Amino acid sequence: MSDYRVLANALRALSMDGVQKAKSGHPGAPMGMADMAEALWRGFLRHNPKDPKWPNRDRFILSNGHASMLLYSLLHLTGYDLSLDDLKNFRQLDSKTPGHPEYGVVPGVETTTGPLGMGLGNAVGMAIAERMLASEFNREGFDIVDHYTYVFMGDGCLMEGISHEACSLAGTLGLGKLICLYDSNGISIDGEVKNWFADDTAKRFEGYHWQVIKIKNGNDGAEVREAIEKARADKDHPSIIICPTTIGFGSPNKGGTAASHGAPLGDDEIALTKKALGWNYGPFEVPDDIRAQWDATKQGAKIEKEWDDLFDSYQKKYPELAAEFKRRNALTLPENFDKQAREWVMSLQKAPDPKLATRKASQVALNWLGAKLPELVGGSADLAPSNLTFNKESKDNGPHSFGGNYFHWGVREFGMCAAMNGMLLHGGFRPYGGTFLIFSDYARNALRMAALMKIPTMFVFTHDSIGVGEDGPTHQPVEQTASLHLIPGFDTWRPCDQIETAAAWVAAVERKDGPTALVLTRQGLEQMPRSEQQVKDISRGGYVLKDCQGTPDLILIGTGSEVALCVHAAEKLEAEGRKVRVVSMPCSDVFDRQDQNYRESVLPSQCRARVAVEAGRSSLWYKYIGLDGKTVCMDEFGASAPAAKLFERYGFTVDHVVATAKTVLK
Amino acid sequence: MSDYRVLANALRALSMDGVQKAKSGHPGAPMGMADMAEALWRGFLRHNPKDPKWPNRDRFILSNGHASMLLYSLLHLTGYDLSLDDLKNFRQLDSKTPGHPEYGVVPGVETTTGPLGMGLGNAVGMAIAERMLASEFNREGFDIVDHYTYVFMGDGCLMEGISHEACSLAGTLGLGKLICLYDSNGISIDGEVKNWFADDTAKRFEGYHWQVIKIKNGNDGAEVREAIEKARADKDHPSIIICPTTIGFGSPNKGGTAASHGAPLGDDEIALTKKALGWNYGPFEVPDDIRAQWDATKQGAKIEKEWDDLFDSYQKKYPELAAEFKRRNALTLPENFDKQAREWVMSLQKAPDPKLATRKASQVALNWLGAKLPELVGGSADLAPSNLTFNKESKDNGPHSFGGNYFHWGVREFGMCAAMNGMLLHGGFRPYGGTFLIFSDYARNALRMAALMKIPTMFVFTHDSIGVGEDGPTHQPVEQTASLHLIPGFDTWRPCDQIETAAAWVAAVERKDGPTALVLTRQGLEQMPRSEQQVKDISRGGYVLKDCQGTPDLILIGTGSEVALCVHAAEKLEAEGRKVRVVSMPCSDVFDRQDQNYRESVLPSQCRARVAVEAGRSSLWYKYIGLDGKTVCMDEFGASAPAAKLFERYGFTVDHVVATAKTVLK
Repeated sequence: MSDYRVLANALRALSMDGVQKAKSGHPGAPMGMADMAEALWRGFLRHNPKDPKWPNRDRFILSNGHASMLLYSLLHLTGYDLSLDDLKNFRQLDSKTPGHPEYGVVPGVETTTGPLGMGLGNAVGMAIAERMLASEFNREGFDIVDHYTYVFMGDGCLMEGISHEACSLAGTLGLGKLICLYDSNGISIDGEVKNWFADDTAKRFEGYHWQVIKIKNGNDGAEVREAIEKARADKDHPSIIICPTTIGFGSPNKGGTAASHGAPLGDDEIALTKKALGWNYGPFEVPDDIRAQWDATKQGAKIEKEWDDLFDSYQKKYPELAAEFKRRNALTLPENFDKQAREWVMSLQKAPDPKLATRKASQVALNWLGAKLPELVGGSADLAPSNLTFNKESKDNGPHSFGGNYFHWGVREFGMCAAMNGMLLHGGFRPYGGTFLIFSDYARNALRMAALMKIPTMFVFTHDSIGVGEDGPTHQPVEQTASLHLIPGFDTWRPCDQIETAAAWVAAVERKDGPTALVLTRQGLEQMPRSEQQVKDISRGGYVLKDCQGTPDLILIGTGSEVALCVHAAEKLEAEGRKVRVVSMPCSDVFDRQDQNYRESVLPSQCRARVAVEAGRSSLWYKYIGLDGKTVCMDEFGASAPAAKLFERYGFTVDHVVATAKTVLK
Repeated sequence: MSDYRVLANALRALSMDGVQKAKSGHPGAPMGMADMAEALWRGFLRHNPKDPKWPNRDRFILSNGHASMLLYSLLHLTGYDLSLDDLKNFRQLDSKTPGHPEYGVVPGVETTTGPLGMGLGNAVGMAIAERMLASEFNREGFDIVDHYTYVFMGDGCLMEGISHEACSLAGTLGLGKLICLYDSNGISIDGEVKNWFADDTAKRFEGYHWQVIKIKNGNDGAEVREAIEKARADKDHPSIIICPTTIGFGSPNKGGTAASHGAPLGDDEIALTKKALGWNYGPFEVPDDIRAQWDATKQGAKIEKEWDDLFDSYQKKYPELAAEFKRRNALTLPENFDKQAREWVMSLQKAPDPKLATRKASQVALNWLGAKLPELVGGSADLAPSNLTFNKESKDNGPHSFGGNYFHWGVREFGMCAAMNGMLLHGGFRPYGGTFLIFSDYARNALRMAALMKIPTMFVFTHDSIGVGEDGPTHQPVEQTASLHLIPGFDTWRPCDQIETAAAWVAAVERKDGPTALVLTRQGLEQMPRSEQQVKDISRGGYVLKDCQGTPDLILIGTGSEVALCVHAAEKLEAEGRKVRVVSMPCSDVFDRQDQNYRESVLPSQCRARVAVEAGRSSLWYKYIGLDGKTVCMDEFGASAPAAKLFERYGFTVDHVVATAKTVLK
């Protein structure tokens, strides 16, 4: 038995024991991938367990996140802040070892994985960020950004559609420092994959212009090392190393079968397995000599020290670049940004463009932001001319070319959003990306993951209602704005004019603890008058845009393109002697986080005659209008016709808002 | 100029004219694909324009649905019920020619397309249905089911992840009668695709085990014909014909560029184009001799007549099979099914299994339904042992094997759901497919498309809350049940026990005008007592499960695993002298369709002390509880821990429901 195998067995044993103690989890994949992991982590991975955020570390992504015990075992053995007690607490409440690897919870975990294929998408984003950051900050003799991105992935990842989007893009861009090890064990939950997944994956990836390296035995540490050497040598193409392995390797009765996939092996089988592996230690026991060989803290301190020295010299030679590099990695905004931003929004209010579509207002905002924030990286899933995501500072990236700050992501919404999350997780960039709001559905799980990880990725969703017009119901969002609001911690802004759009962009950029979407119109919108205080209050998510004297008889609540309807309906009702307040609610998520006093001041309890107006599903509005309110909303699919005809057809007219209001007025 | 080209020019001219008149639309793709369309439709397609529902017609799917004017021109010229006036009404309100092809609106449109890649997924389902139906109904000398499925698709379709899922599956299954023509024009909205999509698509599809046919010129009708011949000859592999074409073919100034993609060419450019093409006719003008060559009504009548004769003989020889074939194609249920189903649900109420998880109750239901309904086709996206979608009647399908009624779809949620929609659209089957509820996010646009098309596809989403437990927040749905409710016309059931699960299945199966999802627990649930009337009322979506004397002081509304909590909280409150009603609301979508009297009888207006309890987002509940109600819901992400600990942590306890109720009780 090689030394490699013995060291890999430590991972196997801890994984089996962790799952067994939790009475839940996935032992098969960790046992199958243990030799791959030993080869990569002991042979190549440049990291410092005592500083998991060291900027130039290699990134390691476990895309098949259910193999979490493998990663936890690696982190524990190499010296991260993850104790044996943590491993024993696998999958328990408030532990540092949750069922799937969670970013922000487990030190050393680069991204949250579990939903299959997504980690691969994140990794593509990280590999992009590495190339871009290198292009921007490296100077001759100072490769301060120079690392690999390694991915482990399984059959499940490669069946998912996102693997196509991510890998086709990676091949097109020529991400040479992206190296993926494919755990080809031929088993998925339903059994042997050959009956549902017969791909010649080598050919498929040749089609993507990857370097394809097929090895004979993924359970042979020496062979895996050789393959990784080869992968690293090709700097022009991403590499996939196809590693045939045995799931549950070592288990006499469950190895090679789906039985080892998603349940503890059982004490008896663990005993048999340890015997078969020649691992003569009790649960969670790893002998000192093996621990010593795994310990990466010394080596980690050494390589970080070398980099620190390099960076010190860089700092002396390029003090401004070094300062900018630090700022960018810390995700902090330039000094005085907040003040300047507020002044800029205010200046727009004083001299607004008339009748701007909010997608166009967004472009105006991006022109301003782009000049201030070099960390902004834009892009669109092949809808740049429609999403208006390109700004004056935008410069294309493309194949082997990363000196720009804009991506044509292709028609790959899910891949784009996952890659943007990866770029953000890598550090150094604030990506934003666009598509039609309707296609947020294609990317939905990536949006959720950004929220779960509390990272401030930014999404630009234009063509936000039946205002899409002639393209018809396949392209007209009805439920999408509401369904984005449902994602916990995901801020969805639907601004009503240029000023709210600018304020929404500022909120998105200033947010540090979660993602933001901007939901924008295709069609031109009226510009609203506002006081300075009202401009300031936009950032509270909802505010009184137009008020009456004293307690209102009626409150009209609107968002986006429907705010103007509310204002004009209010004018009509006022002419009839009614006291009407109009509340603009561009972001109910932010409004809900305001204190009770503020919310009450905007929506006073004593006024229950309320109408919500939004060209989308009514369902979420009852929270603000209750059982006595009414909605002018869109609870059915739209149709193909010019937008003006559709707004008329579906009741988005001043007269219909007025008529609806009268049914709730006492 | 060949005759083929002249005939293709008729399609080009109508497409240009239609888009121009609408002042909106996509001329480039129709003009580029016109020769491919002419070759397929005039050379091979077996269809009868006067009977678009003839069961044995070839299926034609325009996966790049924005090229709708191509399809409308084809339908018009070959003789479908689509007049020149209809073409002139392109993209107008209530026209039969919407911006993207819509199933149920345009005669001859097999599926609604527009969201890229989805049509390809539908087509895989249709090709599967053809093989399965043939396997079940054909007899020696009677190939009553024997047709091809043809797809047109573009670069966008092939960039989308779903193309991978669909095509990998089609290759694995060996769908030899699926023939896809790839309009490889190298242009997408952002420009030349080479900078973001450099795939060697031939190699990619060889990796999927497709027959790959590359032709030199997709604008050469003869060459396309030859390729289709070759594609048809290989019955063991799906075929892709890679057709290099020029987008906007014929347009001197816009052809070959993105400028022809998504906007009218303009009158001047149309004039130049017609001149270049040698098409000397005015807007919407097609000379009679060209019309005559396009007319497919005679040929269509002839081939349908031949089939009718064959079917008559078949009917004589196999009367029962023929009757069943007709029933299945009409999507009607067996006689007396409704009566039997109601008796069966009632019998379960009388002798329920104790403490069944609703996923297990679903399997029990599928055992009963499977025996009654041979049209049921089950499957799961690699979670069969977890979703419990396999029933006693289930028998696997697989590579080149379609005699069963169950699919292991692999880890392909989106592809599975799109294929199920395709099977349903084909006719003959009622597919249902499972995955974890959390991964409904991956398939979301396919669910929406089922709702938009009003087709009764059935989705089984298990592991429906933090009840998932140790797998943690990546796998715990929080917002998914609510977000499914947001899709218009999509019925989402979250049953609370075995009986409601059975009733939900009956509702799903009996529904003809839209899709249904069943949202089911991993964990065991208590069985509720019910009167006969209460069992009947389940089908109304919401009903009084436990009542008090007189007007209630409080209404507790629950779904799924939280209904038992409501019942026990009610018992506690009653012991304290409170009058409490418990409403079980397994499907608010169906409840909302009940008449006002019924809804009022369940939720009487005068009782505003209401608490909704559901282990998911609270947002949708305010519609039923108003501003005076409270929720016991899940408005944050979950965590990794045993389920019981999580329910406790997040307040899903009888005591917490009682305490919350007391805050709303006067």
